[in-house]
Amino acid sequence: MPRYAFRLEYHGAPFHGWQRQPGLPSVQARLEAALARLDPQAPDATAAGRTDTGVHATGQVVHTDLMRAWDPTRLIAALNHHLLPDPIAVIDCAPVVEDFHARFSAIERLYLFRVLYRRVPPVFEAGLVWRRRHPLDLGAMQAAAQALVGHHDFTTFRASLCQAASPLKTLDEVAITAHPDDQGTEFRFVLRARSFLHNQVRSIVGTLERVGAGAWPPGRVAEALAARDRAACGPVAPPHGLYLTGVRYPVDPFGG
Amino acid sequence: MPRYAFRLEYHGAPFHGWQRQPGLPSVQARLEAALARLDPQAPDATAAGRTDTGVHATGQVVHTDLMRAWDPTRLIAALNHHLLPDPIAVIDCAPVVEDFHARFSAIERLYLFRVLYRRVPPVFEAGLVWRRRHPLDLGAMQAAAQALVGHHDFTTFRASLCQAASPLKTLDEVAITAHPDDQGTEFRFVLRARSFLHNQVRSIVGTLERVGAGAWPPGRVAEALAARDRAACGPVAPPHGLYLTGVRYPVDPFGG
Repeated sequence: MPRYAFRLEYHGAPFHGWQRQPGLPSVQARLEAALARLDPQAPDATAAGRTDTGVHATGQVVHTDLMRAWDPTRLIAALNHHLLPDPIAVIDCAPVVEDFHARFSAIERLYLFRVLYRRVPPVFEAGLVWRRRHPLDLGAMQAAAQALVGHHDFTTFRASLCQAASPLKTLDEVAITAHPDDQGTEFRFVLRARSFLHNQVRSIVGTLERVGAGAWPPGRVAEALAARDRAACGPVAPPHGLYLTGVRYPVDPFGG
Repeated sequence: MPRYAFRLEYHGAPFHGWQRQPGLPSVQARLEAALARLDPQAPDATAAGRTDTGVHATGQVVHTDLMRAWDPTRLIAALNHHLLPDPIAVIDCAPVVEDFHARFSAIERLYLFRVLYRRVPPVFEAGLVWRRRHPLDLGAMQAAAQALVGHHDFTTFRASLCQAASPLKTLDEVAITAHPDDQGTEFRFVLRARSFLHNQVRSIVGTLERVGAGAWPPGRVAEALAARDRAACGPVAPPHGLYLTGVRYPVDPFGG
């Protein structure tokens, strides 16, 4: 059975996350339903990142096996036809070697978190950013974030329900940039790692936001990390500001 | 009664345009309902541009009179509170002189039309752009657009229901830019004039799109204009790509 990799984007709002769950809408169930229209024997779709309820994606990667070979362009068009009107789109597709695994072959994941400081509610970005009514100090957040980069025990920054065997992870980058316009400033947090713990990005962003707001001194982030205690974490940022933007593999399955 | 000017943004999808109509949701009716919560005797709100069903705004300007003086910051917050959860936000507010008129004092209006060439349906920009499945020739559209700039009889490019006394208008600018990303290209059409005829922007963009697609030679746009015949117009572009982005006055009411 030929194996295919897909790159997907989706709006997280209507879905209880990536993972199929009985009786609840999920991205996986919708994609598998679309695949089944093309190939009744298509097995499960497997994703690089099992995004939570409400989390968006612009670069999720998924693999599945199909009974027959497809032209990628026709496969993209057919799947997008069957995915409508749901806010899920297949933006790329390629045949891959049979041992390619969207989750286990991945060597890097990239997340974006969007925080918008704005006096008035955003009309066009409602549901796409975490809106704050107070300004944030970019330099303070950048300084505090550096304590998190590297190989650490991230117990403080993972959900109590996290099922990972170990809280040890290597965070390769936390890049924070500010994008002002005449109504306010968008702060973009880009986090890069081989893999993340459950709620790790949202826990980190929610904590750094406290620093940006002036409620926490920057040094408290290093102390929270060293505490290895979930109770030392700041508030967890909401899911609707979070985007899985990319997944990297030893060989790019899409040839880019 | 003190007069106030407001700058508004709104998502056009839920509304039958700016103008109040019996039994139909409109931006005017929603704004007037919010104003009435603050001041039961608030008279009508008057807008610079009576946007059509489905058309968006990021810089609509409106005026109304209120019974008492308000601090602009508190007025913005109170109105936005009463406008929720509708996708309308007051982004600026200022007291103005009593003969300021949002519509009749305006000396320039600015519209943006967004056309997105993309192979796959856009998830995050659905309803915010006019999606085309074919690439567009930027240079051909720019060349054709120049025939429309200046003082002309725009009979070809106005709705047959247009109520303006004269089809003569001066179009000051049609600027078209291309913004590529890895999924396609967004074409932004910016049109600037003292005032526009009904459906003029959408008629012009829909016609220029035919040139960009290669279906019309660029010179046919000048011929269509010279024909002064509605039947010579290309297809009218859909409302959900159109934004009223700004209105200019002899003195900026918001002091910008």
